[in-house]
Amino acid sequence: MPAQDPLTIGGRTFTSRLMLGTGKFCDFGVMREALEASGTQIVTVAIRRVELSAPGHAGLLDALDLDRYQLLPNTAGCRTAEEAVRVARLARAATGVNWVKLEVIPDARWLLPDPVGTLRAAETLVGDGFTVLPYVQPDAVLARALERAGCATVMPLASPIGSGRGLRTGELLRTVLDGATVPIVVDAGLGVPSDAAQALEGGADAVLVNTAIAEAHDPVGMAHAFALGVQAGRAAFLAGRMAEREGASPSSPVVGVPRLPDPEAVDVG
Amino acid sequence: MPAQDPLTIGGRTFTSRLMLGTGKFCDFGVMREALEASGTQIVTVAIRRVELSAPGHAGLLDALDLDRYQLLPNTAGCRTAEEAVRVARLARAATGVNWVKLEVIPDARWLLPDPVGTLRAAETLVGDGFTVLPYVQPDAVLARALERAGCATVMPLASPIGSGRGLRTGELLRTVLDGATVPIVVDAGLGVPSDAAQALEGGADAVLVNTAIAEAHDPVGMAHAFALGVQAGRAAFLAGRMAEREGASPSSPVVGVPRLPDPEAVDVG
Amino acid sequence: MPAQDPLTIGGRTFTSRLMLGTGKFCDFGVMREALEASGTQIVTVAIRRVELSAPGHAGLLDALDLDRYQLLPNTAGCRTAEEAVRVARLARAATGVNWVKLEVIPDARWLLPDPVGTLRAAETLVGDGFTVLPYVQPDAVLARALERAGCATVMPLASPIGSGRGLRTGELLRTVLDGATVPIVVDAGLGVPSDAAQALEGGADAVLVNTAIAEAHDPVGMAHAFALGVQAGRAAFLAGRMAEREGASPSSPVVGVPRLPDPEAVDVG
Amino acid sequence: MPAQDPLTIGGRTFTSRLMLGTGKFCDFGVMREALEASGTQIVTVAIRRVELSAPGHAGLLDALDLDRYQLLPNTAGCRTAEEAVRVARLARAATGVNWVKLEVIPDARWLLPDPVGTLRAAETLVGDGFTVLPYVQPDAVLARALERAGCATVMPLASPIGSGRGLRTGELLRTVLDGATVPIVVDAGLGVPSDAAQALEGGADAVLVNTAIAEAHDPVGMAHAFALGVQAGRAAFLAGRMAEREGASPSSPVVGVPRLPDPEAVDVG
Repeated sequence: MPAQDPLTIGGRTFTSRLMLGTGKFCDFGVMREALEASGTQIVTVAIRRVELSAPGHAGLLDALDLDRYQLLPNTAGCRTAEEAVRVARLARAATGVNWVKLEVIPDARWLLPDPVGTLRAAETLVGDGFTVLPYVQPDAVLARALERAGCATVMPLASPIGSGRGLRTGELLRTVLDGATVPIVVDAGLGVPSDAAQALEGGADAVLVNTAIAEAHDPVGMAHAFALGVQAGRAAFLAGRMAEREGASPSSPVVGVPRLPDPEAVDVG
Repeated sequence: MPAQDPLTIGGRTFTSRLMLGTGKFCDFGVMREALEASGTQIVTVAIRRVELSAPGHAGLLDALDLDRYQLLPNTAGCRTAEEAVRVARLARAATGVNWVKLEVIPDARWLLPDPVGTLRAAETLVGDGFTVLPYVQPDAVLARALERAGCATVMPLASPIGSGRGLRTGELLRTVLDGATVPIVVDAGLGVPSDAAQALEGGADAVLVNTAIAEAHDPVGMAHAFALGVQAGRAAFLAGRMAEREGASPSSPVVGVPRLPDPEAVDVG
Repeated sequence: MPAQDPLTIGGRTFTSRLMLGTGKFCDFGVMREALEASGTQIVTVAIRRVELSAPGHAGLLDALDLDRYQLLPNTAGCRTAEEAVRVARLARAATGVNWVKLEVIPDARWLLPDPVGTLRAAETLVGDGFTVLPYVQPDAVLARALERAGCATVMPLASPIGSGRGLRTGELLRTVLDGATVPIVVDAGLGVPSDAAQALEGGADAVLVNTAIAEAHDPVGMAHAFALGVQAGRAAFLAGRMAEREGASPSSPVVGVPRLPDPEAVDVG
Repeated sequence: MPAQDPLTIGGRTFTSRLMLGTGKFCDFGVMREALEASGTQIVTVAIRRVELSAPGHAGLLDALDLDRYQLLPNTAGCRTAEEAVRVARLARAATGVNWVKLEVIPDARWLLPDPVGTLRAAETLVGDGFTVLPYVQPDAVLARALERAGCATVMPLASPIGSGRGLRTGELLRTVLDGATVPIVVDAGLGVPSDAAQALEGGADAVLVNTAIAEAHDPVGMAHAFALGVQAGRAAFLAGRMAEREGASPSSPVVGVPRLPDPEAVDVG
């Protein structure tokens, strides 16, 4: 199925619909195995955390096989449009990659993005030639504005970053999906594969997961589980779900089937 | 993973945790393809519907490759314990299979099972040497009684049969799972693969699906999607999910990371 | 409104649809004030807890003004039908009240009732002339059997006793409500007044609350809040709710309204 | 309770926490009765709909007793900040009221507000001396920006306008409530009083309802039901809810209570 159902972002085509974050793994070995088990093709890295300039630092970027993955630098930790633009440019200069997951997060408690600052930074970065994937609240009007600004995707949150509370914004997500002209990637808050499947079943194009994999008891096993969940959700979306019914509907209709002989003959203890 | 994580019911071992119903497929060809795509190993058939005695009838049973699947005759359409016992015995006589999915359903509107009648019929059928898989409401006290009576599984409903409303009984399902000594198979009401994944993630051992596959726009594609969803849910259960948090937790901690240079140097449009 | 919309149970008529439990109050003074603030007319008491025979015991029953409230002795702590029947008879002998809230709870962990034992005890107690209000899981088939046995109400749980998790069994509750011939009283698990309102809006006839009031920071204030919530839910049920829509519908239609003059004239900062 | 628990908006104090819309009533008589039954003190009116300049028009404003209600003109139907500012000024000129419910809604399908345009218009209108109550998505960062801009409240939606789907944005609403410095008024999508109660229980300061009352079978009865629901929710918030438990907790502890005599003596049918 993947071969016939590619995901295209910024002119590149992917067969996996599961993006992974790298921020919470306890060690690089587990991280590499989890990336492998997930089948991901897009990996996001917080540039501030990479400490690009640290001398002799065997850092995160060295631990990633960049021939296999589309590197997606992100601007985590940036509180304003200005900071995010600066970090995006530093990231491009250091890595040669012009993709950026744009995060403008003034709110330290809930880690919620700033709609106005995100839109402003996105306009600037698109103008700079970046492929921009902005992290946003599930706001359909903002999503449309980001599309018009030239963003490559829109990435609405499922619940607060790192909370693992699952898809709690479904009511608004459906408004973001309705009429979207770029891929919608559900980002933040997914806790288990069924959350990811649910997002894809509803029409989301992909998901991004970090904490739910890194903090699982077995991160590699969970990475595989998310891979399956994403495939399940996409396959279901393509297959077209049944209509819900208010009431019951017999799986095995017995209308017209003659009743069997008299029950008296049967001995029930 | 399946090889190391078998499901054992009535002394038989299975690698698939997805059981399929056959009652709603529009034609036998699609049904066979869907069974194939689902990877199922256990297939339930309503004995009343099979019209066992119809002369020259190229029926449902003939359409099933019984070397590949564990046939699970069910007593759909039976309203009392007595009827269900009788149909189970007829089914065994006709098919040579001594497994039975026990349905005692007096309620034509919601197709809900009778707890008292189900327990009574289960006791009789276990005494008769049947491997009994009873369909029940998610009632933990009843589930324990059915286990004590010698049932091979307990099969609580997710929502009304054929409704596709998903796992709406999770609050009670967790009480059924807590302390279960036989496999718990969530049956009835699942609408999409994320519903199945959610059941497995929560600790259910397997699911049974019929309408959600048969009534999908593409039943074969949906059968495959459910196979993936079930695998995702089981893999996640084994991998051990992250703990939920009330609030946010940064994926990319920036504590201790020096702030970058002065933002004035950056030009944002 | 109450005067025109009475609740009738066992031939007695009530204007309040909020029953209260007494088991968790820290002192009798707070309990009495909370009962007053709730406007309740039916109060349940665990007979075992009352220590009827304790010499010189100024107990719970003395703290209740039994002229104001219908006393509803309950069989909390009984694990079998036999025990429950015995406690009900003791309660009647000691109090002169022939109402009983029937609890047959073999499960110490989740405090879930036994469907088979509850039905059996109910049949015995109805035969003994009791007005029987059985506590059950939200099982419509069992509910109908209890009605046929002559029970005065059926009392399905919202979530586990004392959990405060709210109405998590709505999917099954609607099947219990559909076709009920006695009042349905939602019992156990309600945490806040909106839970009670939701139950009444859906058609439940009354609710029983204990822990959510007794364990509130201000039990008397919360008793009043529940009284209002129950009235709100009942009033909404009688008023007939709007139909839900999938999408939006303008509150203030502007179709046909001429657009205002040219926006250029307006100065926006 | 209201006397000790006032709601203050724009320097005015209210005892009711239920605001009403006027857009969907079938006739002015029912509207007036519903306003009365609701106990509301703040009534919103779409200025475009009022047709202020229609000669000889006995319009909506004439039907309202403006001595009793704080009139809250709204900018429904405005797609841009510019339009909204213009309509707000027209409304003030025509009515003498300088309050405005600010709606900037470019999206005709879901009727979702524009975060950027709303913030811009709010800044302008505050500068003009208006008391501004902006309608927004439940975006905490935007809410804080609107507070800093001098808005009198923030009005996040529960679900799409007129949908009656209830409080589906609770996950984000709690982030809006956390740290709010002005009253938070939940607006749009509430369908039944339990929805309103739930919003207030969670800490919202008030709600605004229109369709759920106007489209009820009995609008006057439903207005009263919402009044009760809002009071219930506020009273519960002030009383402090119990903590939720994962499992059960007996209402009537029986620890230490001696078991009753031997059950053999009891005859159960």
